[in-house]
Amino acid sequence: MNNYSFDELSVGMSEDFEVTITSEMLENFKAITGDVNPLHNDEEFAHSKGHPGRVAFGMLTASFLSTLAGVYLPGEKSLIQQVETKFANPVYIGDVLTVKGEITELIESVQRLELKVTITNQNGKKVLRGKMQILVV
Amino acid sequence: MNNYSFDELSVGMSEDFEVTITSEMLENFKAITGDVNPLHNDEEFAHSKGHPGRVAFGMLTASFLSTLAGVYLPGEKSLIQQVETKFANPVYIGDVLTVKGEITELIESVQRLELKVTITNQNGKKVLRGKMQILVV
Repeated sequence: MNNYSFDELSVGMSEDFEVTITSEMLENFKAITGDVNPLHNDEEFAHSKGHPGRVAFGMLTASFLSTLAGVYLPGEKSLIQQVETKFANPVYIGDVLTVKGEITELIESVQRLELKVTITNQNGKKVLRGKMQILVV
Repeated sequence: MNNYSFDELSVGMSEDFEVTITSEMLENFKAITGDVNPLHNDEEFAHSKGHPGRVAFGMLTASFLSTLAGVYLPGEKSLIQQVETKFANPVYIGDVLTVKGEITELIESVQRLELKVTITNQNGKKVLRGKMQILVV
């Protein structure tokens, strides 16, 4: 786990990691949230909507932004204040996602950084775009 | 589960539900994301930062927006396009959260709704404020 202090950060710094989406992740996410929407839970329903299989919950994909901030950039001192995400393409079980964040702004007076975030699948398609405001505390 | 069609929706409609945050939710969220940040996983570390106990991952609290859209408003036909969240106050194990969404805009040409979302704890404190853009498909 990284543990950057505010003074060690600079605009342009980036971190990334890979995750593979599993059916267990979908089950765990449903267990947490109670989101029983059939698009994520019923293979036949997902097919009827034109998908090759169950679609991962968008907010499950967004969950990896927690790891991006809390483990990678800035790591231990992270306190997420604000998150904006756009879901650009569907995510399926078996997809290998690259979660990436790059510092675009540092505001010393409040020890806050802005991270531009992208999550890309194994075909190079962006599945999530967004930005985060994170305090370094 | 609700299953509103676009034509059945109107500005001002709202839905809400309650959830109690459990340590199992934190464990499940860590299992999904690999976010091992000690603020969420280490009681002593959380105390050292001035908290009464481990702090729930912000993105775990945000996960309930998945349920709000996919089960309640609009329910089955929900496809989340965009989410903005601000984390206003910390959430702890045992907190009873009220997750609420209210329709603030309906755009018929693209069958999209905007939801103003708030998550409030048992003391009436807002822990999350935000908005969502959701397609009804």
